[in-house]
Formats: sequence, C-alpha cells, structure tokens
Amino acid sequence: MTNKQIKTMKNHLSERIKTVPESFIRRILKVSNQPDVISFAGGLPNADLFPIQAIQQACVKVLENNGKQALQYASSEGDIGLREWIAERYQTVQGLSISPENILITNGSQQALDLLGKVLLNTADPIAIENPGYLGAIQAFSLYRPTMHSVSVDENGMNIDELAQLVKAKKPKLIYTVPNFQNPTGISYSQQNRQAVAEIVAPSNALLIQDDPYGELRFSGKAKTNFMSLLPEQTIMLGSFSKIITPSFRLGWIVAPTNLIKPLVIAKQAADLHTNYFSQQIILQYLNDNPVDEHIAKIIQFYGKQKQAMMSAITEYFPKDVHIATSEGGMFLWATLPENKSAMTLFDKAIQEKVAFVPGKPFYVGEKETIPENTLRLSYVTMSEAKIKTGIKTLSDCIKKM
Amino acid sequence: MTNKQIKTMKNHLSERIKTVPESFIRRILKVSNQPDVISFAGGLPNADLFPIQAIQQACVKVLENNGKQALQYASSEGDIGLREWIAERYQTVQGLSISPENILITNGSQQALDLLGKVLLNTADPIAIENPGYLGAIQAFSLYRPTMHSVSVDENGMNIDELAQLVKAKKPKLIYTVPNFQNPTGISYSQQNRQAVAEIVAPSNALLIQDDPYGELRFSGKAKTNFMSLLPEQTIMLGSFSKIITPSFRLGWIVAPTNLIKPLVIAKQAADLHTNYFSQQIILQYLNDNPVDEHIAKIIQFYGKQKQAMMSAITEYFPKDVHIATSEGGMFLWATLPENKSAMTLFDKAIQEKVAFVPGKPFYVGEKETIPENTLRLSYVTMSEAKIKTGIKTLSDCIKKM
Repeated sequence: MTNKQIKTMKNHLSERIKTVPESFIRRILKVSNQPDVISFAGGLPNADLFPIQAIQQACVKVLENNGKQALQYASSEGDIGLREWIAERYQTVQGLSISPENILITNGSQQALDLLGKVLLNTADPIAIENPGYLGAIQAFSLYRPTMHSVSVDENGMNIDELAQLVKAKKPKLIYTVPNFQNPTGISYSQQNRQAVAEIVAPSNALLIQDDPYGELRFSGKAKTNFMSLLPEQTIMLGSFSKIITPSFRLGWIVAPTNLIKPLVIAKQAADLHTNYFSQQIILQYLNDNPVDEHIAKIIQFYGKQKQAMMSAITEYFPKDVHIATSEGGMFLWATLPENKSAMTLFDKAIQEKVAFVPGKPFYVGEKETIPENTLRLSYVTMSEAKIKTGIKTLSDCIKKM
Repeated sequence: MTNKQIKTMKNHLSERIKTVPESFIRRILKVSNQPDVISFAGGLPNADLFPIQAIQQACVKVLENNGKQALQYASSEGDIGLREWIAERYQTVQGLSISPENILITNGSQQALDLLGKVLLNTADPIAIENPGYLGAIQAFSLYRPTMHSVSVDENGMNIDELAQLVKAKKPKLIYTVPNFQNPTGISYSQQNRQAVAEIVAPSNALLIQDDPYGELRFSGKAKTNFMSLLPEQTIMLGSFSKIITPSFRLGWIVAPTNLIKPLVIAKQAADLHTNYFSQQIILQYLNDNPVDEHIAKIIQFYGKQKQAMMSAITEYFPKDVHIATSEGGMFLWATLPENKSAMTLFDKAIQEKVAFVPGKPFYVGEKETIPENTLRLSYVTMSEAKIKTGIKTLSDCIKKM
C-alpha cells in the first residue's frame, strides 16, 4: 500500500487546496520538540495545569448517570446544557446577554473559521485579516479563495487609517480580529482603538469576527469592551475551552446572529454531523462540579509568573535595541530586533544552542518585500522559570553575536 | 441577542451554502422521536449495546497513565497507535496490507467526505453517486458544487450499463459507493458486480470511494472483495467506529494513496487542527483491553435477530406485492410498494397510528419526475422484537387501507 500512488494526482487536486500555505510552524515545532531544547516556539498550553483528576471524575459520572445518551449520536447544534453554560458565562464575565440559540458548538475555534469561510465566502470575496495574524485563520479562509487584505496591528490595536481605507475601497465581507492577547503578538486593542474600529465598520456591510481564545487569561490591566457590545448586528464571536481547560477535546463555539446560525448548522451537519458529544458532556459535568474561576485563576497566576520571569530575563540580558510589545495576558511576547537583524538567521544560530522560537515572518501576509524580517514570537507558558532565564540569556548571546 | 439579525444576510451567504439541501430526515426524526412512537425511521445504532463500562475503564486508565498527553494538542494525522490498530485490522479481517501512513483519522466518515470534497472538487467537476444513496454524502459534496451524476443501485449493486456510459461520457472525478449493506437500501454489491465496476473504472482517471460504515455487521452470506484489492491505485476507503463501538466520539478514518494523504492532512489541519485526541486514546485503550470481535459478534447477533423479527412480521402481515430488497447485514431494509402507492401518503397515515419510517424520496437525486414515490427505509436496530411485530402489523394495515 505504501507505494501506491495516484498517477494523475495533479489533475485531481482542487484549485483551492493548491493555494493553502503549508504551516511553516509545524516544521519548526518538529525541531523544537527535542527534549534538550529550551523551546519558546510552541503554541500549546502548559499540560501541568490540565485538571486531569477532575476530568476523570466527570468521565465516570457521565458514563454512570447518562452513558447511553453520552455515547449516542447527538444534535448538530451542540449540547443545550453546554450552550446554556456558555451563554451564562458571557453574562457573568462580560455582562453580555446571549441566547443559547445563538451558539453553535464546534471542533475548537479552528472549525468555526472553516464553517464561516464555507458559509460566507465566494471565490475572490474581499476579507480583512490582521497583519501579523493567526496562521490558522489564514489557512482556513484561504481554502475558500477570498481576496485577502490585511490591516497592520501594533500595541494599540488595528491601524485605523489602513482599516478605514480598506473598508471604503475594498468593502470586505469579513474582518477577522483577535483583540485580546493576540496570536502572535500578545497585544490587545485599546478601548479607544475598539471604538474607532467599530465606528468604521458600523456603516459598512462587513461582519467582524472577534476570535477570543485567550480572553480569560488576563494578568494585568482592565478588560476592554467586547465588539459584540459595540457592533451587535455585525459581530461574530468565537470562543474555546482549549486554553482554559483542555485543547485535546477540540471544543469551541460560534456566537452569531440568528439568521447566520441556521446556515452554519447546515454546514456543520455536512462537515461532521456534530462535535464529539461525549466530550461535550464531560466538559459540562466538569464545569458543573468544579469552580472554573479558581482553575482559571491558577492558570493566570502560573502564566503570569512565567511572563514575569521572561520579562525580567529580557530586561537583564537583551540588547536595549530589541523592542518587546506590551502585553497584558495570553501566552506570547513579540520581539522586534533592530532592522538589519534577521529573525531567521537568529533562529538558525539559536537552535544550534538548543533554544527555539518562531520567527515572525510566517505570520504576515502581503508582498514578500513588505514583510519585516526582524520579528519573533516567544511563548513563555511551557518552560520553567529557570529554563526561561537560561534560554533568554542564550538567545541574547546569539543576538549580540549577529 | 436573540433578536439580532444581520440585515444584509442574503448578500453575505456564499453561493455554495445556498445549494445544500436541508436534511428532510432530521425533520422526520423529530416527529419519530416521541416516546410512544414505534420508530423504524432512525439511523442510530442501538444504545443498549454500547460498551459503557469498558469505556469508563478506558477513560480512567488513559487519564491515570497518560493524562497530560491525552489532554494536549496532538497531530493532525491522528494517533499513530490507533492508525496501526486500524491497519492491522484490515490485515486480519480482509487480508489487506495497509500502511498506517496511508490512514488519516477524521471526525466520523462524514468529515472524510467533506475533506475529500475540499481537496478534490472544483466547481462543476463531474462526480457519480449511488441512486438512491447516502444523504450525508450528497450534502457534503454539494458544498463543493460538483455536477452530480447518479448510477442506479439494485440488489446486485451498481447498474453496470449506466456506470459504463457515465464513465465514458462524463468522466467523473469521483465515484461514491457503499458496497456493503448500503444506506438506505441494505443491499450489497455482488462479487460479479464489483468485478464489473472495477473493469469499467480501471482504465479511467476516476477515484472510487468505498464508504464502509456497516461492513463488519454481516448476518449471513460471504464477504465480498474490497475495491482496494480490485482498484488499488484508485480506491479511497472510509471507515468508522460509529456503528461498532460508539458514534458520539465521531471517530472515522480515510485510507488513501500517499500523494492524496498529504493534501488531506493540510485540509484537516485547516478544518479543525486534529480530531479529539482524548477520544482517540480511549478507543485505542478500549480496543487493546477488550475483545472487539466478541463485541461485534454481540451486535451482529442482536441486530440479526431484530432483522429476522422484522422479516417474519413482513412475511406474515405485508401485502404480497410489497417488495423487500435482499440484505445480508447492516441496519436497514428497503421496501418497494406497488407503483401507484405513495410512501409519503403512507408516512402521514402511519404517523397517526404512531409508527414512523423514512420515505425513500429524499435519498434519490435527479429530476423530480424520475424519482419513485413508492419506496421506504425501515431500520430494525433500535426497537424490541415485540414492537417490531406490532409496528409492522400497523404499517401493513395502513398499506392495505391505501
């Protein structure tokens, strides 16, 4: 079997699959995952914080009390109890009034992006994404062959002039944002920036996606207004249990207006009938039996200390002309080297010294010559404070030698 | 929130989502699921046969021995241990030599269909599906807007003349088949029919999908040759744990040639990163710790008795001019009423008497006037033998009154 090949494969592949960028990061992760490497490359949460025992108790309880139903086919929309819990959490944490009918359970927020692309995008439809931005969104959308435009993000949020011009000139159907602790930069849109974005989007026909996987992981500063409050008829929210409970369950959700939920459910049904129902039941049982706020507080405390350790080491060791973007939460820091220094060259040097990170280049879209070579993403959540210190020192030595 | 509507929704929806048929069956299932209805309508396996306790033991073991990994992000290809188990099972049961590298784990075989459509189909590409055939496949493929052609199936399998003409005239890129215990008809392709199909497909560039969710559920007769043996370079096999262990885990797989697996993995990554890894680990633990052949034998014995009960009741009560298609396994029987009798009318009468089934019409593709009105699908797996007898008697009375 291994040697069996379809001889005419090139004729068979769809145009859309030929355009999807292969994830450069996956290749980097292979090098970075060697046990002797100090890796700031990963995008994974810290497995030490998974609530293993509580999940085990939830499994036993669900199977004992409700085994037949938990193992049977279920509705495409997702478990109603879980959707009610999510709606209630929006109320408690953000004061947002969401109906469970407006929530669709998905396989992580990655599937939410795929379903939105499927339901909304025709070939060549204009869309806007953050630059730099989340690679998974670029991958998911690119399968539907839109015309991708980008809006620069910096420590304040979206570049308002760029956004205004783009909305006016290109009329994007979708605007994809990660306003809280963005991947890859760790930055958040300021309150003023959100207001300005909303003012530009409101008179247009664009839909704004607020992807929010890290929103609950705030170490400092104050929560900012959700786009759902600023643009209630144009905002689609995505959420996920991956960063606050477990990613392996692939449990996320979409919050969307009623007339968008219906076609999304049809697309979900065609995609995989429904999301793993057993895992939906386990998560719900876990949430009902355990104080999730305490669990999230533990993650925040842990990650917050790791971020602090990385910032301290950076202050101590990094050359002063390396800029670190201000970040109040999440999992990443974003470093900008002096303009003449290449993060790819730094990667090659650092990996020889057993330190890994992700160069910033793959997170950008646009013409090659416009993409900065000197940015990098540093994840601080999986390494111990001691290793963070050692790794940052090594990285500093590599930068200084360039 | 509930009242929030996107005002310009019609302008937003993609062309592809507008063409997907909404599942008529879902609507029927809502009526059929009332507790006092004897339902032959469902497509669900019998929940009494789920190995609840063994799954519970597997959960505990996985979380105790390997909790951190089981709750972390995992590879898009799927767990290598699970893929090895699947490869070995093809060897043991069917004598097929498959490499784990040629297997991709998906969210049930439904996602396999979506990924294949995504990777292979451009708008208007010709494909061939069975008529009548599996609705989920029609739904999944139609999102990629192919030109759908159909080939009639009867008790021998595909109509060979129709297939030959179609392959010659339309050059389909894909041919979708369920050669074992097909949904909706319960029929299997004969050995001779498979041979003839393979001879027609071999010289063409078509890829043949053998979807096989029911293949292990044989009550009588002898296993037939897999298309993978007949068309090794053109066959894509789909498999699933839904009908033999549990459907709620949404665990299926694709077996494909090496040069097709690679783009499928990219599409999988964009679709949802990977399939629920916790559930992959549980199924593997379950398979390692329990004799799955004994479990499948139990299902076969149970379903076989239920099928026998339905056949006996049909022989006793049904008018002699109702034809039942020969079936050696699976979950369904296919009835054909005399030509002047409508299964939709029968459904309306029967549901008043608290008996439900699925009229055959939604399983057909093609021009309205070519679709027979007089077929119906009867599932025998979820009702007790006593209820099967009562339900068939009631249905007979309704037919006689028409």
